[in-house]
Formats: sequence, structure tokens, C-alpha cells
Amino acid sequence: MKPGKIISLFLFVMVLSLCAEPSVEQWGTFEFASNGPTNGNPFLDIKYSARFTQGTNSIVAGGFYDGNGIYRVRFMPDHAGEWTYKTASNVRKLDGKTGSFSATAPTAGNHGPVRVAHTYHFAYADGTPYQELGTTCYVWEWQPEALQEQTLKTLASAPFNKIRFCVFPKRYQWNTNEPILYPFPGDPAVAHWDFTHFNVQYFQHLEQRVADLQKLGIEADVILFHPYDEGHWGFDRMPAGVDDRYLHYLVARLAAYRNVWWSLANEWDFMKQKKESDFMRFGEIVSRDDPYHHLLSIHNGAKLFNHTLPWITHASIQNGFAVEEPGRAELYRDVYRKPVVYDEVKYEGNIASRWGQLSAEELVFRFWNATIAGTYCGHGETYQSADQILWWSKGGALKGQSPVRLAFLKKVLDDSPVDGIEPIDPWQHPEIGGQPGKYYLIYLGKTSPTNWDFRIPRPPTGKLQAAEGMKFTVEVLDTWNMTVTPVSGEFTLQKKDNYTYGDKDGRSVPLPGRPYVAMRIKRVEK
Amino acid sequence: MKPGKIISLFLFVMVLSLCAEPSVEQWGTFEFASNGPTNGNPFLDIKYSARFTQGTNSIVAGGFYDGNGIYRVRFMPDHAGEWTYKTASNVRKLDGKTGSFSATAPTAGNHGPVRVAHTYHFAYADGTPYQELGTTCYVWEWQPEALQEQTLKTLASAPFNKIRFCVFPKRYQWNTNEPILYPFPGDPAVAHWDFTHFNVQYFQHLEQRVADLQKLGIEADVILFHPYDEGHWGFDRMPAGVDDRYLHYLVARLAAYRNVWWSLANEWDFMKQKKESDFMRFGEIVSRDDPYHHLLSIHNGAKLFNHTLPWITHASIQNGFAVEEPGRAELYRDVYRKPVVYDEVKYEGNIASRWGQLSAEELVFRFWNATIAGTYCGHGETYQSADQILWWSKGGALKGQSPVRLAFLKKVLDDSPVDGIEPIDPWQHPEIGGQPGKYYLIYLGKTSPTNWDFRIPRPPTGKLQAAEGMKFTVEVLDTWNMTVTPVSGEFTLQKKDNYTYGDKDGRSVPLPGRPYVAMRIKRVEK
Repeated sequence: MKPGKIISLFLFVMVLSLCAEPSVEQWGTFEFASNGPTNGNPFLDIKYSARFTQGTNSIVAGGFYDGNGIYRVRFMPDHAGEWTYKTASNVRKLDGKTGSFSATAPTAGNHGPVRVAHTYHFAYADGTPYQELGTTCYVWEWQPEALQEQTLKTLASAPFNKIRFCVFPKRYQWNTNEPILYPFPGDPAVAHWDFTHFNVQYFQHLEQRVADLQKLGIEADVILFHPYDEGHWGFDRMPAGVDDRYLHYLVARLAAYRNVWWSLANEWDFMKQKKESDFMRFGEIVSRDDPYHHLLSIHNGAKLFNHTLPWITHASIQNGFAVEEPGRAELYRDVYRKPVVYDEVKYEGNIASRWGQLSAEELVFRFWNATIAGTYCGHGETYQSADQILWWSKGGALKGQSPVRLAFLKKVLDDSPVDGIEPIDPWQHPEIGGQPGKYYLIYLGKTSPTNWDFRIPRPPTGKLQAAEGMKFTVEVLDTWNMTVTPVSGEFTLQKKDNYTYGDKDGRSVPLPGRPYVAMRIKRVEK
Repeated sequence: MKPGKIISLFLFVMVLSLCAEPSVEQWGTFEFASNGPTNGNPFLDIKYSARFTQGTNSIVAGGFYDGNGIYRVRFMPDHAGEWTYKTASNVRKLDGKTGSFSATAPTAGNHGPVRVAHTYHFAYADGTPYQELGTTCYVWEWQPEALQEQTLKTLASAPFNKIRFCVFPKRYQWNTNEPILYPFPGDPAVAHWDFTHFNVQYFQHLEQRVADLQKLGIEADVILFHPYDEGHWGFDRMPAGVDDRYLHYLVARLAAYRNVWWSLANEWDFMKQKKESDFMRFGEIVSRDDPYHHLLSIHNGAKLFNHTLPWITHASIQNGFAVEEPGRAELYRDVYRKPVVYDEVKYEGNIASRWGQLSAEELVFRFWNATIAGTYCGHGETYQSADQILWWSKGGALKGQSPVRLAFLKKVLDDSPVDGIEPIDPWQHPEIGGQPGKYYLIYLGKTSPTNWDFRIPRPPTGKLQAAEGMKFTVEVLDTWNMTVTPVSGEFTLQKKDNYTYGDKDGRSVPLPGRPYVAMRIKRVEK
């Protein structure tokens, strides 16, 4: 090719790439920036949003001021294909601007945001089941940079697919250091803040960490308020107008990240400066502002929030007692008819507080109880440490013995029915979950039997049922030693009494005589 | 006195008594009757009500047609003193009639209707605590007259202060006889009913039985719909308009009886012809029509109703599993923040169905668990009988061993704090109920210890708290053998660790080594 032609081709490609419509993958974050006013107070004065349209699908996303005269709108397309948009603002420079972009097919690992599925469970928007297995590091993202990087590295090889953390900094035992940034401009030394402005670097950093988690396939369960401030900074007792503006701003910035969940508060009832009605208002703001209806809940201290409210997607519950047996854990499902996530069940660790001294065995036991009940459980770790770095608060490295067992549980969950593990006959056999006539997971907890009479419930009501003649295989799972041992042969259902089936040949299942044993019973496919 | 004077005086008294204003005691049932139209269909055509006024207090009570051209209005005055009333109707003959009556002070045993008190408990309107202890005889009032009388006689000496029963007849195993009356005119042989009329004798009989219970000091938990018909009569599948008219009619007739509670349904979710939205409508009708806001709930089969709804006063729950330990029973309190009544926890009896074969020990055990949890439990009895008379359905005589133990429990409840038994530290010590620093009731259930380390929780949060130096006495209660044994001396609180007090001298409580033992620990009053 002659030099002239090469230059022509080069120029042609240059022009093409300049003219090319921007693109983002479906459920990715499309963003555009505009220059706007810098006079006055952009955070207070400027209204800015954009309407995104694809055929009859029309979605309004809030815009936000990102400092230095830059205004941004972010949008998460829920369908592939062409999208157009048009801005709206109370200032001419930002109003009525139009554009378009193309949403491409999602790439590997992008399944969209997590939604409620089968009433009590979760699935990604593309239908892939999401088996929730969360942990908590309340303010990992406000620790020194190197520690944040270590946390991300730890998460990359941990079994967790969700992490709970706070937007605001936390001050509490083992966490009395100041954060690397503050959400408002002001003077940290005297806790004086300009609540009429946001510190954009703070939010930029926060969303970078949300994006980092997204790359790891981890959902970010973002906690919007918490009580662990007690007036030290005062972010737990801002005026109502500031609370509301903060929520509008945060949702505009974060909603277009597909891995975001909203947790209105941690231990909402311990926030003595707030009333229950404040959290009702917060929930209404977030659910109205968020065009994608990300998962939304609120976590309790001693007092449960009313999770029957329509804008609450799932029950986020602190209650370690409830997961000490599957039967208890199941009771809240019946109330809420929503997924129940026991986000705080006490932590694996050795601190003096009774909420932070579970053995690894006990925490794994609680996860299994929650699983059998058709609910979900949350991890946390509080091992004393000379460097004052406890995973539960700051992240860093995991020291406990539970995560590897939770990885084993995760494998079991990934192999479970796509419509979820359901209680089978919970008031009689709380130790049995599954899908009737298809799959049973039976957990024997702290008992150590050497034998199990093969018994399958035949409850009087229910959808799909087991029936005589159905054949099943049994595997024995040692949930602590992480082994799966198949039992030879098949078991064939025969009516035992009005409420149970046994095996037609009266077979039972030999067990190792150790605690923490489960059985996985699967229908033999014809 | 001369004969003439005697006659004069006699006449004077006669005239006085003729002119005397009618009177009824406060919370009694004032009723007046008027003659009205008999043409057309009075049940459909006539609107009739009366407004009762005392000062600024003004209450509208619905009227009803009682047959033979008689129209009635009933009213329960909530204050003593003079009341006036004025009728309203769409027919002239019944419209604008005025009258007055006097409400006198309530007589002994009349404490008014039962209300919610201290969030989770009950009290009569005059403030007297009401310690709920209920039983169930679903259709006792539609059995032959002699059996009804036997039931009333049994109740007169039983510990129960509430009974659940159905308005409509029931057809179910052990209850396949026809009722003595039917709610609508028609032909029972072919289950053909004139739904445009009510059989007034049916409702007259029902309210007579409510009045009989009132005389015994027993609350009537009237079940408005139930599934045990399955189309035999079809009262479980009437058109919506008939359902609604029935509710208006029933509330007009019964609301002025102070001992009425409304139970929208038994096992609402087993009524396959009804939707959940139907029961929402029923609840709204009853709560709107009832001027006195009697206690109102709805009982479930397998699916809990949403007891957070504002018109539901307390959670009426079927769940025997939940009361197998106090910790489970307590969980529903946290959800509803209302009184929780476990109205069905399976029954003492020996029938083949697993819901009707509890031992007396087990049923009493469940009552105690519910009590410790700050909730309430319900009795029922299903002993097989040659005469097919099972208490649970038809009433008659009690055969079981639990009622006498429930009478013992009732005595313990009557001696408990007026603000109710509350969980003290439920996620750690579910076996302890009471009022912190004042009164503790500790139930050891099926364990048989010979000794109990004196330990009182000092939870980190709570209202009134125990404190070092407080002195307590201990009584050992054998809940099965019905004995109360005081432990000699006093116990003085001394901090044991961050979460508990012990006795300053390290004393423990000797126990009999039998199951079903409780301890009652009371603060020594100075």
C-alpha cells in the first residue's frame, strides 16, 4: 500500500472513530458529561435529569453535579439495542440536549442486576439463579488505600457474592481512626460541615469501589445510614433536608451500577435521632428515584422494620437466634412472603462482646440452618488483632475457618434447584428443605447419628408432591470436613404412614456419627 | 296508711315507672325496637341506623330487621350518664325518631370490652388486665339444645375466658350432623337458600349464646367465615354481595355485646373460593361498621395473613411449632408489635390426625412457652368418643388433663405484672419472661435439673433494668403437679459478667429434678 493510501485510510478510521456512536453493554453504566454553571451552588440550584428511550421503553435518570463545572447523567440500559436520550434542566445550558448510544449484548459474567425470584429467592435479570452468600466489612472503603486493595484481593478468592458496607464513615470500638475522605466539605477537627455541598471526591471513590466489586461479581449492599457516629461527625443526625438531598444525590450517582443494593440503614432503631417515619420517607425517596428498582431493604437492631411494605423487596434481618435452627428461620418467610436474608447472625471471632465470639462451626451451622429454611445468611469476622484490623469493620485478610466451609456450601447451593430450596413440611420436619418430589436437602446439625431412617414427608398440602415409586439417590455431605459421599443404590418411595414415605425395601442411610452432616437426595431422572 | 293513700301511692309509682327513662349499665346492651315496613324485602330495601349522643361523643350504630315488622337498634354506651339518640332511615316510619336513656355504673364483673394494652397484651376497658386463656368449640351453639347447655355448664367451671366458635355451621370429620338452624331460609335437603333474606331465629339464637357467655365472663371470638363447608351448604362460597350484606347484618346485631371479638375467618387460606382481597374487604367492612372497635383478627391455615394491617388489632395465629419453645413464639411479636395469640397449636387428644393427638403435658408445655414469650395460647380437645362429641367441635364435657393445669397457669397469670410478661433478653435467654428489675418467670420446659444457678439478665438495652443490690424472692412452680414452693431467704443481685447478674453470695436454687418446672422471682418490696 502506498504511503498516501495509508494516510487516507488512517484518516478515514480516525473520522469513523470520532463519529462512532458510543456504546455500552446491556446492564453496563452509560455516562455522559456536560459543562454547566459553576456560579451559585450547583448542588442546590440545578435540576438535571435525562430521559432515555428505546421504543416504548422510557426511563428518567437523575443527573448530578460532579464538581469543576461538570454535570453527569448515568444510565443502565435494561435492553440491548439503540437508545436515545434528552436532558431536562432548569438551566438552558443543560436542558434539551439529545444523544444516542448503543447497548451491546452483555459480556461474560454480566447477568444484570439481582432481582427477587420465586417469591423467596433471587436471580439475576437474565434468569441466572443468584445464591446469596454475603459478608460485611462496614467501612472497608474508607481505610488506607493499601488495606482497601487487600480487601479486594481477599474478596477475589472468597466465596462471598455480596458485601455490606456503609456510605458514611463509622466510629466504633476497633474503628476509631478517621476515614480517608469526608462526604461534605468542612473541618473534621471540629466536625463542622458544609451540608449545602457534597465532597465529590468522596462519592467518586465510593463508586469506584462499587465498580471494583462489580468486576469481582460481588453485589454491593450499600448502607445509607447507620448509628455508629454518635455525633462524632454528626452524619447520623443531619437535618431532614440534608438527609433527603444526600439520598437524591447518591441514587443519581450509584443507581446505574447493576450490582448495587440499597440498605436504608444498619440497626435503624439504634439511630436515636431518627424516627421510624424518617426511614419510611427514605425508602420512598430511594424507591422513587431509582429507575431500576434495585433490591431495597433495611437492617434492624432490636426492632424489626415492617418488611411487608411494598417498596421493601426483601427482609434484611439481624437475628442470630433465628438461625440456630431451620424452623425458627422459616417463620419470618411466612410473614413477609419475600426473600429473608439474615444479614447479621453474630460473627465468627473472639472478642469480648457476645455478638462477636462465634466459633467457625457455629457460624457455618447457622448458614446451613438458614439454607434449609429457604432463607439466606450473612458472614462476618471479629478476630482480635494487634493491628486493630477486624474484617467485620475494616476488611483486610480473612482469618477464620468458616469461609472455606461457606465455599463448600456455595457449591451445594449452585447445584440446588433453580426455583430455590423451600421448606417441605416446616412445622413437622424443619430439618428438610428442597423441592418436593425432586430434591431434598436434610441437615442434621449438632446431632451425630450413625444411621438415618429414609423418610420423605408427604404433607397434605403443597404444589408438586412426592409419590410412591419415585426413585432417589442419596449423598452424605460432611459440611465441616467438606466431603460428599454417595450412598450406593437407589431408594424407592413407599407410603409409610399418612405423613411420610419410606424406602420400599426399608433401607436406611449409614452416617458417620459426626455433627454437621447433611444429606442430599435427588430424584433419579428417567 | 289509709287504703286510699295506698292506692294513690301505688298509682304514683306505676306512673313513675311507666314514665321512667330506660336505663342500661355502661358497656351493657341498650336496645330499642320500632315497627316498620313488612312489604318488599326489609333486608334489602331498608336503611336504618341511629346516632347516639352524649356531649361531644357521638356514635352511629347500625339497625337491623328482626322479622315480623320489628326493626331494632342496639348500642353499647362506653360512658355512664345520659344518652340521647335519633334514628335515620330511608323510610319515614323509621326516620328521625328520638329517645334517651341513662347508662348506669357497670355492675360487678362488667369491666367493658377487651382492648389491646401495653402493645402486646390485653386489658378490659376499665383497665383491669385481661389474661387471655382461650379454647375452641367450633359449632357448639348449633348442636342439640341439651349439649349446648352442657357446654355452658362446663365453661362455667373451666379456666377459659375466651371461646372461638363459628357463625356458620361446620361440616367436617366428627361433625357431619346438620345444625339445629340455618342462617338463610331455604331447603337444607338440596342446599338451596334464599340469600336475599336472613333467618332471624338463627341470629337470635347466636346472640343469645353470646349473651350467655357474657354472663360467664367469657369473650366470644366469633368466626365469620370458615372452609368447613366445602359446598355442602355453600356458605363458604356465597356471592360477594351476600357476604358483605351478611357482615353488615351480623355487626349490627352483635357489636353492642361487649364480649364480642371478630375473627374474620378460620384457616382463611383454605377457603379456596375466596381470594386474599376478599378478606381485606371483609376486614374493612367489619372495622368500619363496628362503632366500638372490638378486637379483630383472622386465623390462618398454612399461610399467615398480613397482621401488620392497621385494622387488625392482634395476630391470631395457627402454629403449633412456634410454641414448642418460647424463643420461637416471641419472633412474631417482633414482627407485628401487637398481641400475638396462638389460637391453634394442635389439640390435646388421641385422634389419628397429627393435629389432634397432643398429650396434656405437651399442650400445657406449649401454653407455658407462649406465656414466657409474652404471647397467648389456645386450648382445644380432640378425644375420640363413641358419641362423636369432641370438645373442639361440639363442646360438651372436657375429658383432658390440661384444663386443670391451665387453671393453675391462670392463677400465675393473675398474679403477674399488670403491664404483662415481656421477653427480657429473648435472643439469649428465651426461657425468661417478666418485667426487668421487678418480676421474672423462668420456665425450664422438658429439662429436669436439680439446681439452677441464680442468673438474671442485664441486657444492654431496655427500659426498666435490674441493678446491683436489688433483692428477690424465688418460688419454684411445678406446672404439672400444680405446686408452689417458696425458696427460703432472699437473693441479692451482683454483677456476674457483662450480660448477667448472679446472687451476691453465689446462691443457687434447688429444683426437684422433674420436667415442667418454672421459677417465679419477685422483687422484695421495701
